[in-house]
Amino acid sequence: MKVGFIGLGNMGSGMARNLIKSGHEVIVYNRTRSRAEELQQVGATVADTPGDASHAEVVITMLADDRALAQVAFGPNGILSALDSNSIHISMSTISVALSDRLAEAHATKGAAYVAAPVFGRPAAAEAGELAIIAAGPADVLERCQPLFDVMGRRTFIVGDKPSSANLLKLIGNFMLASVIETLGEAFALGRKGGLDPALLLDVLTNTLFPAPVYKNYGGMIARQEFEPAGFKLPLGLKDVRLVMEAAESLNVPLPVASLVRDQFITALA
Amino acid sequence: MKVGFIGLGNMGSGMARNLIKSGHEVIVYNRTRSRAEELQQVGATVADTPGDASHAEVVITMLADDRALAQVAFGPNGILSALDSNSIHISMSTISVALSDRLAEAHATKGAAYVAAPVFGRPAAAEAGELAIIAAGPADVLERCQPLFDVMGRRTFIVGDKPSSANLLKLIGNFMLASVIETLGEAFALGRKGGLDPALLLDVLTNTLFPAPVYKNYGGMIARQEFEPAGFKLPLGLKDVRLVMEAAESLNVPLPVASLVRDQFITALA
Amino acid sequence: MKVGFIGLGNMGSGMARNLIKSGHEVIVYNRTRSRAEELQQVGATVADTPGDASHAEVVITMLADDRALAQVAFGPNGILSALDSNSIHISMSTISVALSDRLAEAHATKGAAYVAAPVFGRPAAAEAGELAIIAAGPADVLERCQPLFDVMGRRTFIVGDKPSSANLLKLIGNFMLASVIETLGEAFALGRKGGLDPALLLDVLTNTLFPAPVYKNYGGMIARQEFEPAGFKLPLGLKDVRLVMEAAESLNVPLPVASLVRDQFITALA
Amino acid sequence: MKVGFIGLGNMGSGMARNLIKSGHEVIVYNRTRSRAEELQQVGATVADTPGDASHAEVVITMLADDRALAQVAFGPNGILSALDSNSIHISMSTISVALSDRLAEAHATKGAAYVAAPVFGRPAAAEAGELAIIAAGPADVLERCQPLFDVMGRRTFIVGDKPSSANLLKLIGNFMLASVIETLGEAFALGRKGGLDPALLLDVLTNTLFPAPVYKNYGGMIARQEFEPAGFKLPLGLKDVRLVMEAAESLNVPLPVASLVRDQFITALA
Repeated sequence: MKVGFIGLGNMGSGMARNLIKSGHEVIVYNRTRSRAEELQQVGATVADTPGDASHAEVVITMLADDRALAQVAFGPNGILSALDSNSIHISMSTISVALSDRLAEAHATKGAAYVAAPVFGRPAAAEAGELAIIAAGPADVLERCQPLFDVMGRRTFIVGDKPSSANLLKLIGNFMLASVIETLGEAFALGRKGGLDPALLLDVLTNTLFPAPVYKNYGGMIARQEFEPAGFKLPLGLKDVRLVMEAAESLNVPLPVASLVRDQFITALA
Repeated sequence: MKVGFIGLGNMGSGMARNLIKSGHEVIVYNRTRSRAEELQQVGATVADTPGDASHAEVVITMLADDRALAQVAFGPNGILSALDSNSIHISMSTISVALSDRLAEAHATKGAAYVAAPVFGRPAAAEAGELAIIAAGPADVLERCQPLFDVMGRRTFIVGDKPSSANLLKLIGNFMLASVIETLGEAFALGRKGGLDPALLLDVLTNTLFPAPVYKNYGGMIARQEFEPAGFKLPLGLKDVRLVMEAAESLNVPLPVASLVRDQFITALA
Repeated sequence: MKVGFIGLGNMGSGMARNLIKSGHEVIVYNRTRSRAEELQQVGATVADTPGDASHAEVVITMLADDRALAQVAFGPNGILSALDSNSIHISMSTISVALSDRLAEAHATKGAAYVAAPVFGRPAAAEAGELAIIAAGPADVLERCQPLFDVMGRRTFIVGDKPSSANLLKLIGNFMLASVIETLGEAFALGRKGGLDPALLLDVLTNTLFPAPVYKNYGGMIARQEFEPAGFKLPLGLKDVRLVMEAAESLNVPLPVASLVRDQFITALA
Repeated sequence: MKVGFIGLGNMGSGMARNLIKSGHEVIVYNRTRSRAEELQQVGATVADTPGDASHAEVVITMLADDRALAQVAFGPNGILSALDSNSIHISMSTISVALSDRLAEAHATKGAAYVAAPVFGRPAAAEAGELAIIAAGPADVLERCQPLFDVMGRRTFIVGDKPSSANLLKLIGNFMLASVIETLGEAFALGRKGGLDPALLLDVLTNTLFPAPVYKNYGGMIARQEFEPAGFKLPLGLKDVRLVMEAAESLNVPLPVASLVRDQFITALA
């Protein structure tokens, strides 16, 4: 399949590499061109603009945030100016529900297909093709995308036909992760003050109530004080909390835990 | 071994039953005598007072809260009035750090041994002998207790020689669990308002970031609306949150997540 | 003085009326024209566009929110398209620090003067010319505005030469007010449950620690249950809390009280 | 009138002094005897025990906390062991609702009268006889106390016949004060980061929305950075917040602002 791939950061470059390896014809675009040229060496074509990368059966975007994706989609020489009416745009970035809705509408107006397929997984999982892909969009379009999902992920979860549902689910997951990290921070602060050995505390928690990798990973970093309790800025960032709070506010759902995490975050930054 | 067992609630009766089955000589006491008599039918002796149940090599307590344990330990015909100086009291209830410290001191004064060994696990795990036991106390005393732990639990974690460390660790676990439940409540409220199918949301979360039984169990109850988001009163209760907040306050550790959970809890009660 | 006045809501119409009464030549614009025509009867000229109202020595804006002001300022036939280089735009609306900064820049580019002068006071105070005016901008420009401030307000506070300082101060005041209202809501909920007569509670509080009109007014409404504890939406609204949180976030200042008030607000809406 | 006075701290000594000056026969008790002897020089008799000070028509207590009052009331040679059945105990300390209820019951059992009359005001107001007195108890008993209240305070507010109502009202006032101080701390932190002159910010706030002495006093201290935002420990302390939270918890009333203030407080201590 001819696939455009826009956004070659820590996540995107691994994903694009897997598509190339599995035999797809991949044309890549990245704002910093050098990252695109690295992929040229393994077989990719380098595009000069997002629009150039969109002359394909499928164009995938994997960008840092709303602003970056909006620019690439709506800007001059952007995806929407170039996409064919029988092409598909798969948006895999972690973005707001609002932008996803706006993209869905803009693609519909143009007659092109739009699918949201954000992922759970870290760069290592992207490289290994082991991502969990949360996809939403029209069923027939998702079916056409499935072979690509199978290359990039270990499992695809189909959320429904409204693309932004997948973005909402992704944001909920990130919110829950932020809550886990804040809670771990408080738990280890208390344990430490109370004389518990952090490594032992981690061992008990992850072998009893919380035998999940996120507890092992983030708990391990906190136990070893590799980052401060409130410092989940490293893996996640204020951006994700803000996105889930915006989604919740527009649906009139209070999220006290998210507010608290946001405040702790800003305190840590200050 | 001759073992006294005080407190035959949902947890205690399963634990005592397993001790009997494995051949120990068990003398039981329960405030509501009928629950003790049920165990008589499988081989237990019924004591008239906590003190009577304490004429044993080991006496185990598994009671509802601080007040119940304090009464049974310090009250008339209580454990401390009867315990031999070479006997061991294993306190397995979820109690405050402060009471555990007070018990340690009182037993030391009397020359008797005191061990704290609270557990993670629900009644079904108690019945199956599959509890996780968090034990702290003098190493040689713990060694003498190990055969009993092996009958009641699938694994014992040794926290150190200060008994109340085990209680602190147990409270930290319960705090983290309360945080998970509050977070799940908020997450599903948002998902529901945003049109996500709760069963699907649960499926994705527990198959990606959070593959832990507590997420499956409590998430399942919340997804099926078997209890309200804030209603973690059922499994845990304000008691546990208050205990961890007290411990944190005495150590000057702020626990904003615990405060929030407490407020949500009181709101749910109101 | 020839004065344009844009925005004739509950606040603006009283303010414009006072300017007319005191002899200024006032040209008014309002999106819903009928409100402008009411002022025509007392001597105002009605403009067809914001730009038409800006052909004046001073143009004052008193609009509902950022969006309304941005449209009127930057939109077609807007203030910036019409303002003379020796004219002054006094922005009296409660708006974001960010928009005020953006307006300051846009006016500077055009060579026109821009002053921010938000107010404390309710519609009755606007009508009576008793507002408290919080003004910031270049000193000589403020001096030229003073006669108008004297008509609309009982007192002007000069904050400095950076216009958005006045907006920040206004937002801080509204944040503190929101905190008072939330606190009063909690206090009266507790008093009521504890059997205290709300009128007596109000009487004691406002005659001892809190002898300020805001406590009397909002406390009175809460005591008489004219609106629910969390219902400060009526006087203030989520908008104000969001604006102060945005300002704080951009300055890396955590505002836990604002977060809490925001959550209570959303809960009340839900 | 013959008046016993127990507790000669910063508040009590001024109050007792005023009673002496106005011609009452005052017998004083203080744990640290030297403070009692100071009052001897202006005409007081010094008692050796709280009980000795209770052989009077009225005994007034003004102590630091629940523990101090409980000891003086229920302890050996305490008030209850000595009080005549036609004597009155006026409890003016800031104590818990629960202890006040317990005292009411104990006095009723003994046939003696008990009145709660906590105060608003700082040591200077105590010295000047300018306190605000919040009194509750049987109407006829309060009437007998009124001449003493008139000496110590500028105004008495009668809350009802249940003594602990007065304590609840006092705690609500302190809770609201703690909220003001936390809010001022956040407001000035934001103002400072945003470049506002703290003295100007204070001037505007206290001359517009918040013209109350508490805003001037605490705002002034915060503006001059005499204590840190979260440092309201100086005037109030964790004790007061804890007392109001206990009262609220027992009435099932959530007080999110109090929880937040408590956490900020503990953070400041940590």
